[in-house]
Amino acid sequence: MLITPYQYFVALCLSLLCCSGVRAQQETAQLGKVRLSFTLDRQGEPVYSVTYDDRPIILPSSLGFKLMAADSLLCRGFVVLRVERSEVDTTWEPVWGETKYIRDHHKEMRVRLQEREGEKRRMDIVFRVFGDGVGFRYEFPRQPELRYFVVSDELTQFHLAGDHKTFWIPGDYDSNEYPYTTSTISEVDNAALVAASTAIAVRVAPDRYAVQTPLMMKTADGLYLNIHEAALVNYPAMQLHVDRASLTLTSALVPDAVGNKAYLHAPCHTPWRTILVSDKAVDILTSKTILNLNEPSKLPRVDWIHPMKFIGIWWEMQTGKGTWSYSDYPDSLGPAGALIPSGRHSANTANVKRYIDFAAANHIGGLLVEGWNVGWEDWFGNWKENVFDFVTPYPDFDIAVITAYAKARGVALIMHNETSGSATNYERQLDTACRFMRQWGYTAVKTGYVGQIIPRGEHHDGQWMDNHYIAVAQKMADFHIMLDAHEPMRPTGLQRTYPNWLACEAARGNEYNAFADGNAPEHETILPFTRLMGGPMDYTPGIFRLQGYSDVPGRQVHTTLAKQLALYVTMYSPLQMAADLPDNYAKHMDAFQFIRDVPVDWDDEKVVEAEPGDYITIARKGKGQGGWYVGAITNEHSRTATVPLDFLDKGRRYKAIIYRDADNADWKGNPEAYTIEMRTVSSTDRLMLKLAPGGGAAVSITPF
Amino acid sequence: MLITPYQYFVALCLSLLCCSGVRAQQETAQLGKVRLSFTLDRQGEPVYSVTYDDRPIILPSSLGFKLMAADSLLCRGFVVLRVERSEVDTTWEPVWGETKYIRDHHKEMRVRLQEREGEKRRMDIVFRVFGDGVGFRYEFPRQPELRYFVVSDELTQFHLAGDHKTFWIPGDYDSNEYPYTTSTISEVDNAALVAASTAIAVRVAPDRYAVQTPLMMKTADGLYLNIHEAALVNYPAMQLHVDRASLTLTSALVPDAVGNKAYLHAPCHTPWRTILVSDKAVDILTSKTILNLNEPSKLPRVDWIHPMKFIGIWWEMQTGKGTWSYSDYPDSLGPAGALIPSGRHSANTANVKRYIDFAAANHIGGLLVEGWNVGWEDWFGNWKENVFDFVTPYPDFDIAVITAYAKARGVALIMHNETSGSATNYERQLDTACRFMRQWGYTAVKTGYVGQIIPRGEHHDGQWMDNHYIAVAQKMADFHIMLDAHEPMRPTGLQRTYPNWLACEAARGNEYNAFADGNAPEHETILPFTRLMGGPMDYTPGIFRLQGYSDVPGRQVHTTLAKQLALYVTMYSPLQMAADLPDNYAKHMDAFQFIRDVPVDWDDEKVVEAEPGDYITIARKGKGQGGWYVGAITNEHSRTATVPLDFLDKGRRYKAIIYRDADNADWKGNPEAYTIEMRTVSSTDRLMLKLAPGGGAAVSITPF
Repeated sequence: MLITPYQYFVALCLSLLCCSGVRAQQETAQLGKVRLSFTLDRQGEPVYSVTYDDRPIILPSSLGFKLMAADSLLCRGFVVLRVERSEVDTTWEPVWGETKYIRDHHKEMRVRLQEREGEKRRMDIVFRVFGDGVGFRYEFPRQPELRYFVVSDELTQFHLAGDHKTFWIPGDYDSNEYPYTTSTISEVDNAALVAASTAIAVRVAPDRYAVQTPLMMKTADGLYLNIHEAALVNYPAMQLHVDRASLTLTSALVPDAVGNKAYLHAPCHTPWRTILVSDKAVDILTSKTILNLNEPSKLPRVDWIHPMKFIGIWWEMQTGKGTWSYSDYPDSLGPAGALIPSGRHSANTANVKRYIDFAAANHIGGLLVEGWNVGWEDWFGNWKENVFDFVTPYPDFDIAVITAYAKARGVALIMHNETSGSATNYERQLDTACRFMRQWGYTAVKTGYVGQIIPRGEHHDGQWMDNHYIAVAQKMADFHIMLDAHEPMRPTGLQRTYPNWLACEAARGNEYNAFADGNAPEHETILPFTRLMGGPMDYTPGIFRLQGYSDVPGRQVHTTLAKQLALYVTMYSPLQMAADLPDNYAKHMDAFQFIRDVPVDWDDEKVVEAEPGDYITIARKGKGQGGWYVGAITNEHSRTATVPLDFLDKGRRYKAIIYRDADNADWKGNPEAYTIEMRTVSSTDRLMLKLAPGGGAAVSITPF
Repeated sequence: MLITPYQYFVALCLSLLCCSGVRAQQETAQLGKVRLSFTLDRQGEPVYSVTYDDRPIILPSSLGFKLMAADSLLCRGFVVLRVERSEVDTTWEPVWGETKYIRDHHKEMRVRLQEREGEKRRMDIVFRVFGDGVGFRYEFPRQPELRYFVVSDELTQFHLAGDHKTFWIPGDYDSNEYPYTTSTISEVDNAALVAASTAIAVRVAPDRYAVQTPLMMKTADGLYLNIHEAALVNYPAMQLHVDRASLTLTSALVPDAVGNKAYLHAPCHTPWRTILVSDKAVDILTSKTILNLNEPSKLPRVDWIHPMKFIGIWWEMQTGKGTWSYSDYPDSLGPAGALIPSGRHSANTANVKRYIDFAAANHIGGLLVEGWNVGWEDWFGNWKENVFDFVTPYPDFDIAVITAYAKARGVALIMHNETSGSATNYERQLDTACRFMRQWGYTAVKTGYVGQIIPRGEHHDGQWMDNHYIAVAQKMADFHIMLDAHEPMRPTGLQRTYPNWLACEAARGNEYNAFADGNAPEHETILPFTRLMGGPMDYTPGIFRLQGYSDVPGRQVHTTLAKQLALYVTMYSPLQMAADLPDNYAKHMDAFQFIRDVPVDWDDEKVVEAEPGDYITIARKGKGQGGWYVGAITNEHSRTATVPLDFLDKGRRYKAIIYRDADNADWKGNPEAYTIEMRTVSSTDRLMLKLAPGGGAAVSITPF
């Protein structure tokens, strides 16, 4: 995928051997405004710091590990063996993405360390400095003194230079499905939120001062700061413990069943720890640094990977109109020992055909059918290991009829493999499940991990499950199946390495508007700065019936209809659901036209304006098309998004279709009021898009 | 397999409904000398007791559970809903075994209990009284009040009537490979033994007063008592906590990674708790009660299951003459990245052919080859998950050549799948491993679980691993592969249900004489009363070179050569190894003749005399043959075994070949001295077999 591998090593520059007991010289690397500094302190402890435009971002912060063997520390008593530097400037083409090409320009500084005494273990710290931030990781060379080892704690610190405004969710070992809290660092305390979040199935957040990454911050002097990680392989997720007094964040790795963090085997390395910084919020959204820190695709072929839109037999269950289960009874209770049908099972042949018809008529590529396989009567909440077998349909789901019907109409069925968190059960049956998908022509699968993990004691965000998710992605690739993982770890850019892994959930999706109190109007303005920094999210936008879809009084979606359209642009994903029911779309086919038209793969992007928690306006250019698509969203406050169309081809005339909130729309009282306008525009125009409270606007701009 | 299903229900007798607050009537069931009594005490707590010939065996002992939900107790406040009685007397034919037919004669008493107040949960306790003991289990009927539940503790007690002499090993969650201690119950304390047993790879025995079952005891007045369990499915192993003051044993279930004991789903039941009792030790050895409490075979066909003897490329690694690994280096270090051969790899094609030649020349059916597959350089001790792939041979193991060579000579190769305790890795690859065995014609596999279990935090003896071992047995049956599991749970008679599961290790085998201090001369006189009560053991007898096989000064096998022969009879297994090297056998081909001749499947048995810790003499009749085979062993003391030959056909003349210790033999100073004598015998004769200290005798008696 490397199309112009123009790459050069500026220097393999020189090394210095520290004299024992003498403080190491400071080593720096800089690209643009970002400068990284490294030194050893008097105890031989590695310390780094980061500045942006000479302003301190990360104050001197320590690095290292506590290992299990006799509680040994691997964080002090080091000398610098050598410092190696190089520079890379290359451009690569992703299989799919927000831009056709991605530039990777960074300076690398590898600091080779060795303990001065004792076992004289070696450890490298590799820094990469980009124009918009820093990535660093630990590497453990092959050495007799350190072969297999167990990480008890990673001691990486991020000592912040101020008490920043922060957008955070709790550091929960099992869930990313919390609403965001906006507070200063010194105010972080997740206890009340965790206790109150009863709609989240599994919550394990023992440290009330721990937050999840990607962590988005804004400094008092207007810098935007994002801390996350890249290429999380064979390691637990890094959450951050907040020391509220010193404003220091410390890596808090998710433990395994016995309290260990990671089992490693040198030669090996950790994931990259990433710090993005800019004085412009839009630079955070366009950063490709996390992708650049991931490995290129491991797949021998990728021509079978196709981004797509899909509808689903799903929202009707989320809103209580149907059920995943075939029966209301968990055990076989009919006279012949068979399940007694409840009559409310959504994944029945006739209903599936209706959805296939709708998809075919509206150029929607895929159809997800949940609840098709036996086991849903008691799938959740029992920490039960053998939940599903992934190959046995309910009696009213005629897979032969359905797959033939879909194939004849050009609709791709999307498999659903809910594991209920029982990863061991899924692994045992994974080959069988994949062969079943191949047999019936499924080319994509949505996996799910709702529930406590089995192996019991493991967590969604631990090393064992990290390896599981990746093994599933690899296995699916072996069978040419695209993957959309729900309730996995939050992503770290691995979609570059496994481009069949199109999307993840791993955040609070639109579904919380169905079965719980929902998402505040600001929610979608925060997600792109947090969860989406690691990769695409299957947020399931496109709800048109925003009130009255539930029996719960007062329950509604916290956006306008126009904002639901805008999300197809602001919430990037190569896999986008049109989540509402065909009947609800049928009432607004003029608005549905935007969903029909909007691409899911792009040649270019232009983040017009953005402020986390407040608003986002993005323009994207469809892959291989001349057309652009604009999405603008706001929080609970109305605003006017200003969109200069300077990204259009000069001198060319375009047809703009503007899907916007009606003048009297607002998310709470009048969410479904929208207006569609058509205009002729060119690159010298600017759109002024009025967004209602909780509203948005979507625009398609296609050349005449 | 039920050949004469003559079976009758004596009564479906009647029930009494307890009045609230009134003590329940005592219910009893008796067969022969064994009487079981049940009642509810004043708190509505179930209590049982057992007598033998009116002598108390189990004093009133309580029954019940602590469940996880809000620490709820399921052990008091019960009323008796109904008592149902029945009697069964039937005979069945095992696929293989010690006798051609097995009689199952028992009285069953099912006590249906319900809580008087609160959730009014129901629980049945089912007792089966046999002529030689009692089995009982808990059953949880289908009920809305108890569906999925978690067992925090089982509260079953065995209140002993005296401070018996006891043969015990520690209650270790991960190992049964301890030497036996003989002490009174009040002296039980495993701490020193566990600490000293450094030759055992993984030791987890947090309760110093816990012992493993089968637990063998002898009372002061000469009764023999054995406590174990039968049909251990979907449940952890029951170890026993010893209250040394009250002489009470309490069920101590092996916990899972988070400290729970069992995850159950009603309707369901626990394994059977078994209490065997007799005034004759030989009755304990011939008891079939544990088999009778197991379910019949689940396999649709069993004609592919064939007991056999085998040799192995194994003892040469155990004794340090060769290695499992191909290289001395754990990582690829050759110039092309390949492993550097050490030159000491035993599983090489030329060596395997030598063993095949020996097996073919000596009518040994099978050959086990360990160390044939890549991964042995760093297979152990690192809690490493992806250890072996089970399908990739080392470069010097030419599987095509070897399997063709073996096939041409009629020798069956036995696959070796060492998991290193990484059960998750094995499960992921199990289908692939089985297809590989089928492809190359392997019909048997030896599995191994040396090391800490993965899923991490699980134990060899926990519920998760119990399900794993059974799933492996079932999968092997699907592929028509016989199973010999090393380092699994100790067996509980499941070989009746999965007759392809021929043998297990799960005890301290002969191998401890190779790599550690070995087994005391009494060891083999205890094992049949303890570990073998649950099922056959792959003890690996047949060592002929008893000294000088190791570089460690003073290391030797703690038996004479003749005793090694006797073990083929006294240590029943349908899978018997001839464990020594072909070169060592070549020096004693006259003695090896007994190993050639001795069957591994039997029509009848006669336990002539036995005393745990002292001696065992057994005669067995070969399956479908007229011949009998006698084995007699002793502990460190010499003795004369007296064997009346009254089991021979009356009036028939037989040729007896007696393999006995030479007159000057003793295990320590002169172990390899033996004498072979031939005699003509008939049913009126008796053999007087002189056994040296640590010695034994083996006799084949075939009709003229």
